[in-house]
Amino acid sequence: MIVVGELINASRKAIAAAIEAQDAEYIQKVAKDEHEAGANYIDVNAGIFVGQEAEYLTWLVKTVQEVVDAPCCIDSPDPKCIEQALTIHKGTAMVNSISLEKERYDALLPIVAGTDLKVVALCMSDDGMPETMDARMKIADKLINSLVKNNVPIGNIYVDPLVQPIGTNSTFGIEFLNTIEAITTTYKGIHTMCGLSNISFGLPNRKFMNQMFAVMAIAKGLDGLIINPLDKAMMGSLITAETLRGRDDFCVKYLKAHRKGAFEF
Amino acid sequence: MIVVGELINASRKAIAAAIEAQDAEYIQKVAKDEHEAGANYIDVNAGIFVGQEAEYLTWLVKTVQEVVDAPCCIDSPDPKCIEQALTIHKGTAMVNSISLEKERYDALLPIVAGTDLKVVALCMSDDGMPETMDARMKIADKLINSLVKNNVPIGNIYVDPLVQPIGTNSTFGIEFLNTIEAITTTYKGIHTMCGLSNISFGLPNRKFMNQMFAVMAIAKGLDGLIINPLDKAMMGSLITAETLRGRDDFCVKYLKAHRKGAFEF
Repeated sequence: MIVVGELINASRKAIAAAIEAQDAEYIQKVAKDEHEAGANYIDVNAGIFVGQEAEYLTWLVKTVQEVVDAPCCIDSPDPKCIEQALTIHKGTAMVNSISLEKERYDALLPIVAGTDLKVVALCMSDDGMPETMDARMKIADKLINSLVKNNVPIGNIYVDPLVQPIGTNSTFGIEFLNTIEAITTTYKGIHTMCGLSNISFGLPNRKFMNQMFAVMAIAKGLDGLIINPLDKAMMGSLITAETLRGRDDFCVKYLKAHRKGAFEF
Repeated sequence: MIVVGELINASRKAIAAAIEAQDAEYIQKVAKDEHEAGANYIDVNAGIFVGQEAEYLTWLVKTVQEVVDAPCCIDSPDPKCIEQALTIHKGTAMVNSISLEKERYDALLPIVAGTDLKVVALCMSDDGMPETMDARMKIADKLINSLVKNNVPIGNIYVDPLVQPIGTNSTFGIEFLNTIEAITTTYKGIHTMCGLSNISFGLPNRKFMNQMFAVMAIAKGLDGLIINPLDKAMMGSLITAETLRGRDDFCVKYLKAHRKGAFEF
């Protein structure tokens, strides 16, 4: 299971303020906290700063990697910003994200082709966001085949089928879950990845619902999540689900987490 | 989702004492609490009372049904005890359980054949408890085909693949989960059912692990559980998982549960 820490995102007020003030200390504290809590990648996003995004995103990568020995998940809809941030990134970054939207696809493909970069591949096209498993699989199939043909190893692809709100349509959960399973079983060695918060949009008890949905997705094969790693209930759920899913020989990780107090929430 | 309340089981000390003392009031309070908390069936088990089991099991059915308008899940390894308890049961009981063990199978088949009874079908044979999905499916296939041939409607069959401890073998969780999915997709209209507590045997944080495993099994298609319905965290998890699984149009059940405080745990 790959955990991407989601906190360093300029859509959050405190992060936006820290970026504007170039408050490296604050950003570094968040990055360290995320890494210590179990994040394998630190997501960095400066998307709200139109015109200055490339500069700020690059600063975030540099600032984070000064104190944390982990790769970043470089998160932008703008391929130019990603490209610039990559120039100073140490180690193998994750690019978040390519999709089948033509403009984005054409600009990002040359950046990731033939590299060792990890690539988040969104199931999105110019026809919009797909709602069913079948529609997602059509997009995923084109994206995966094209990436592999362009020398992105299948094991570096993280397909994100895009979570949609269960409050809008009661089938949105199961269509997503079935997509995870279909991708996992159809493309051997591939990874899947998602954020969760959309699932509970407009409903009460969002944190708990997100947590349950994560566990259900792991049951279906999900092996990557963009989450808040400081959420102890969420992290405890992931550890437990991983153990139950057969990814924890002799329950070593589960027992270690227990001794460290991971289930005290 | 069918919830079977598991509390009226003579392996629990307070229940055994109440049975011996013929304390109807105590048994009835537990039954009422289980039903109010959402149990669709009240499990009754007097298995520890060798020689008196039939008498006590029958008394439990009568005692429970005096105050609760719900069917019982009549739980015994002894077909004769089940047969006797059925004679005074009101409504359509669930029989817990038939299996492929020859003696049990031969004695129970005539009791359930051609009836409307709900039947829990354990994936167990005289060769012991199966450990893999394939071994379980072989037993399930024989049991299901035989029950259907003997006029038990497929929609009345609840296959229990038998949960085994993840602490013993790290594949025991995923083999169980995959069995749930295989049964659900192979036999249209069938149900699945299980108890949970074996999964966490010998490990810490058992309640939480059981809860996560229930949610994972629901993701794979499980639609019946034998649990303690007074465990609010478990019940809140089930309601949420059902909603996320697409079994709750417009999130009506989820929102109603929220208003009733189901997520305050």
